Amino acid sequence: MIRFGTVGTGFITEAFIKGAHKSGVMELTALYSRDEEKAQKFLHSMDLNVPVFTSLEEMASSPLIDAAYIASPNAMHSPQAKVFLTHGKHVLVEKAAASNKKELQEVLDLAEKNHLVFMEAMKSLTMPAYVLLKKLLPEIGQVRKYIGNYCQYSSRYDRHKAGEFVNTFQKEFSNGSLLDIGIYPLYIAVDLFGRPEKISAQATILPEGGVDGSGSILLSYKDMEAVILHSKISHSYLPSEIQGEKGSILIDRIGSPTELTLIRRSGEKEVFRPETYEEDMAYEALEFSETIRRGASFSPVSNKALALTVHEIMDEARSQIGLVYPRDLD
Amino acid sequence: MIRFGTVGTGFITEAFIKGAHKSGVMELTALYSRDEEKAQKFLHSMDLNVPVFTSLEEMASSPLIDAAYIASPNAMHSPQAKVFLTHGKHVLVEKAAASNKKELQEVLDLAEKNHLVFMEAMKSLTMPAYVLLKKLLPEIGQVRKYIGNYCQYSSRYDRHKAGEFVNTFQKEFSNGSLLDIGIYPLYIAVDLFGRPEKISAQATILPEGGVDGSGSILLSYKDMEAVILHSKISHSYLPSEIQGEKGSILIDRIGSPTELTLIRRSGEKEVFRPETYEEDMAYEALEFSETIRRGASFSPVSNKALALTVHEIMDEARSQIGLVYPRDLD
Repeated sequence: MIRFGTVGTGFITEAFIKGAHKSGVMELTALYSRDEEKAQKFLHSMDLNVPVFTSLEEMASSPLIDAAYIASPNAMHSPQAKVFLTHGKHVLVEKAAASNKKELQEVLDLAEKNHLVFMEAMKSLTMPAYVLLKKLLPEIGQVRKYIGNYCQYSSRYDRHKAGEFVNTFQKEFSNGSLLDIGIYPLYIAVDLFGRPEKISAQATILPEGGVDGSGSILLSYKDMEAVILHSKISHSYLPSEIQGEKGSILIDRIGSPTELTLIRRSGEKEVFRPETYEEDMAYEALEFSETIRRGASFSPVSNKALALTVHEIMDEARSQIGLVYPRDLD
Repeated sequence: MIRFGTVGTGFITEAFIKGAHKSGVMELTALYSRDEEKAQKFLHSMDLNVPVFTSLEEMASSPLIDAAYIASPNAMHSPQAKVFLTHGKHVLVEKAAASNKKELQEVLDLAEKNHLVFMEAMKSLTMPAYVLLKKLLPEIGQVRKYIGNYCQYSSRYDRHKAGEFVNTFQKEFSNGSLLDIGIYPLYIAVDLFGRPEKISAQATILPEGGVDGSGSILLSYKDMEAVILHSKISHSYLPSEIQGEKGSILIDRIGSPTELTLIRRSGEKEVFRPETYEEDMAYEALEFSETIRRGASFSPVSNKALALTVHEIMDEARSQIGLVYPRDLD
């Protein structure tokens, strides 16, 4: 059983704790928050009772935990991960795991040097529907086009427009549409098709906050092409799609796939809904703990080379759209 | 009643004749084909009986026709249009109306000089669902993203792959995915949102024939972005989508729209299926003949500035993907 502490008290932390407990291989044993009261309220709402730390260093050095799950704003991911890795704890960190490739490389190197597991929590890669997708892919023949689509109107965008300071729309937090959600369809592209030969990016930059509200990236490969669509200021009702010469596969939600539709060129249609836990973060918890058991630093599913390539593409896309984070200047 | 002659004996010519007759304002009075026998067979199959010309010049100078509908391979569109315009006939020409912007400009100038109508047959612009789309657009608030998608596996691609010479996959005919079908979602983008500030294109170039089998274009605007997806070597099952801050509109088929789905951010969904002739080319026939009646050279729907901007973008996209047509070198 992996005993873990969390950083962050948002809905994603709650979802992870539920998933981790569902997995049966991870158990919450500590919680960090700068705000003791907020932490107690959070624990109470989940009917949990574990020690609360208001110092990250103290939780990182506590013998109560083997690992940390980090779900703070993006800009804090890698600095916080370093604290845990320095104190001998494994780390699972929400996407984007770092503000840029350089930061990610440092954290990955530190994990490797300290013989600890570091994993970017790209949930989709670990889910049953995605495992099935990889098996189904040969059915559609030579792949010619991938449309990876994640456009979701953020509930916080209204508050942002009303002038409120919302940290998911601020450069200081290394946020924005690409790093927050565009990363999902991008991960799938790189995992399935490898490193593109060329990329072209565009985005709509929001005047307040200065991050990308919406954007698109072209990924050029030798015999195919991919298009990443993402937005936090408008909503899409289209699934993602992989088009092959013999048919296409539709993926319901690229960030947490549960249903695949295979349509052969003949028109024949098959729908696949592999059994999936409602607490779907259980799958990444299982992968994380299995990686620890193996004694490796990186999971074969969400691995070092993959993560670095994804972050390299995001850096290049941000360079093309002129989006510089304060952390890029460090 | 506009009396017209056709150039081309393919399925699209058949569809146009049916649409034109449905419109009640255009009547087939001549047919051109290099092959007399093929022409007679075509007329017989449609239960029509009109004079057949095997010389384009002769049909163009015949008093039997007021106008020509041209549906030959792309490379022949503008040279053939010039023959008719020179002989005082109005011209409706299938998309792409020219191989490049320079060619189009020449034809447009000639039409204007000779006080004749020239129209690129962008059917979708004239259809009831598109007219309705323009009315519905304000419902979704500030538009943030347009996904214009037309990916259709060509029935001729199998023959092309088998080594047969298929003229829809040959540079000599100025064909390929962008000019053949990518032009549809592109026209809608430019008609609705104007000239983009920047474009980026990618494509999969087919080794035999040398044209683009599939491609994508990013169109950057000030406060929004558009993505054009097109393919003749793979099929998409996704509609097109316009995403606004207050909701999204799905368009069933961007090349011949008949159904719109408006989904408001509240989740409220409305489906619109404006009454549409099955012979849907009737609408462009109506627009064409109405333009002739008005005495203008260009229809306000499918007009000169719009056509030139679309062709300029296609030229730029082809330059980026390295696709040069023999006709570009003239």
